[in-house]
Amino acid sequence: MQLGRVLGQVVATVRSPGFENVSLLLVQDATAESDPEPETFVAVDLVGAGNGDVVLMTTGSAARVAAGDRTPTDRAVVAIADSVIRHGTVTYRTA
Amino acid sequence: MQLGRVLGQVVATVRSPGFENVSLLLVQDATAESDPEPETFVAVDLVGAGNGDVVLMTTGSAARVAAGDRTPTDRAVVAIADSVIRHGTVTYRTA
Amino acid sequence: MQLGRVLGQVVATVRSPGFENVSLLLVQDATAESDPEPETFVAVDLVGAGNGDVVLMTTGSAARVAAGDRTPTDRAVVAIADSVIRHGTVTYRTA
Amino acid sequence: MQLGRVLGQVVATVRSPGFENVSLLLVQDATAESDPEPETFVAVDLVGAGNGDVVLMTTGSAARVAAGDRTPTDRAVVAIADSVIRHGTVTYRTA
Amino acid sequence: MQLGRVLGQVVATVRSPGFENVSLLLVQDATAESDPEPETFVAVDLVGAGNGDVVLMTTGSAARVAAGDRTPTDRAVVAIADSVIRHGTVTYRTA
Repeated sequence: MQLGRVLGQVVATVRSPGFENVSLLLVQDATAESDPEPETFVAVDLVGAGNGDVVLMTTGSAARVAAGDRTPTDRAVVAIADSVIRHGTVTYRTA
Repeated sequence: MQLGRVLGQVVATVRSPGFENVSLLLVQDATAESDPEPETFVAVDLVGAGNGDVVLMTTGSAARVAAGDRTPTDRAVVAIADSVIRHGTVTYRTA
Repeated sequence: MQLGRVLGQVVATVRSPGFENVSLLLVQDATAESDPEPETFVAVDLVGAGNGDVVLMTTGSAARVAAGDRTPTDRAVVAIADSVIRHGTVTYRTA
Repeated sequence: MQLGRVLGQVVATVRSPGFENVSLLLVQDATAESDPEPETFVAVDLVGAGNGDVVLMTTGSAARVAAGDRTPTDRAVVAIADSVIRHGTVTYRTA
Repeated sequence: MQLGRVLGQVVATVRSPGFENVSLLLVQDATAESDPEPETFVAVDLVGAGNGDVVLMTTGSAARVAAGDRTPTDRAVVAIADSVIRHGTVTYRTA
């Protein structure tokens, strides 16, 4: 899984079956934030994450399973990080 | 998932079972458009997307599920984006 | 999926079950041909592709499904491209 | 699979079903340690690994299977490496 | 799939269920050998490959299927290459 940062939302009227009622978050890898142009992804939100939150993203078939097999997504937000501990030191703590 | 831009089509007469009646779109990552030579993919269209549309692409086994388990594809277009909101600001809106 | 170019073959006597009678093609990404050292893959051929053909490759579990669940491959050639149309212009046409 | 180095932990109160009682490890690729900014991942721990351990990580649907199909993760720690042998020479041995 | 070169072995006493009796090979992409620091992977050996062999590796859920669904690995060695033919010329032949 990856730590992601929530950047925003995607609005879409035309959607394939299974995507009708899901919230589509724009996210990027939270551990690559020094990258001048980090890759951006779209994830289905399963935990009610908001802009700026650091979240845990699962990918591949696990995302579909996490979404209860209702939405054929390849990326889902499955947790909100309170803190990240690296070599025994807290390097991120939610505000 | 990724935001993609529809670039064109692939025409193929010889196809493996399951690919007989699908529309094959040429797409690229819509969030990497400053890249001088962005990677290009082929996706099965499930929503009737047209050239220039910004679309949502799902990959891996989710693409096969989204295609109703009829087409063994690893990439499918599952939504057409109306707008993309980044840090509360609309950064893309369909024409 | 990706457009690939068929480069050659892999010959192997010792094979794991499910790989006994498959044709193993050496392929590379056909849309990255300006890359001086493009990554090379091996795909199971399902359509009778030949050297130099531009083909459509599916990856991941879709490749296994495309191969009739008989061969545990992660890449399969599922179509031969006749032409590729980009922004309304034919950019590739088979000879 | 990849050899990973355990860097730390992720603390999260809000979690999606299946993630309630799992230990979330912050890990990086142990064979890319000369990289100044190696990519960081989060893995579910299945073997009781500790900070600094070199571990074996499985990814994709295999991680979910390794976790007994209870946790929809895409990465799991499935072994602790005692030693790594390269060209007949031990290049890593646990302390 | 990828052509890999067998570099060595990983020794591990603490293993998750399904990994008890498998041989863990250290491998790298055989077609990227001019790369000064090629990425290194660990694969389950299904064919009795030895150091220096050029092998065929399958990844993702196909690796698990190739391993008879007993080992939740994401990479398996499924064939030993005798020769590789590129544009009609043998570019690799086993010793």
